[in-house]
Amino acid sequence: MANKLSNDEIQAGLRALPGWSLVEGRIEKVFSFGTYADGVAFAVKVAMAAEKADHHPDSLEILWGKVKVAYVTHSAGGVTKLDLEQAAKVDTLA
Amino acid sequence: MANKLSNDEIQAGLRALPGWSLVEGRIEKVFSFGTYADGVAFAVKVAMAAEKADHHPDSLEILWGKVKVAYVTHSAGGVTKLDLEQAAKVDTLA
Repeated sequence: MANKLSNDEIQAGLRALPGWSLVEGRIEKVFSFGTYADGVAFAVKVAMAAEKADHHPDSLEILWGKVKVAYVTHSAGGVTKLDLEQAAKVDTLA
Repeated sequence: MANKLSNDEIQAGLRALPGWSLVEGRIEKVFSFGTYADGVAFAVKVAMAAEKADHHPDSLEILWGKVKVAYVTHSAGGVTKLDLEQAAKVDTLA
């Protein structure tokens, strides 16, 4: 099981993840799209990647033309390297 | 344009919508599923219905095995009959 990262470790990881930030114990980012359908399509890709990695977003929220993605590893009690890895993967899907 | 409903009108509408409630000016409901994939599939169906009706959820949040759907009509400044109609439609998709 991945270990809970320290705040310094998280901040170091976030330096390589533009647009991601630590909010209330989760790393999250809001992605913008020109249409509602584009946002939904992105969310489905994120969900597929989550199933493949067997590591799911804590929240995947579809708004109009925006999708907010949030990660934390509840089993570890905080953000782990799995979350940082999925965040990097999600960035490739936008 | 649909008119903003009074609180009494909303409550009357919610009586026909089991599980939906008025929370901070939006009507919302959490749907539960056995798997993450089932939740995602439901969310996509909700999004398709939204595109068809050209009336989108204010928020469509995919959690693990749960999907929270929230409606309000920003252009009317509150909940309208469009929101109640979409809520009824969404119930048929679960």
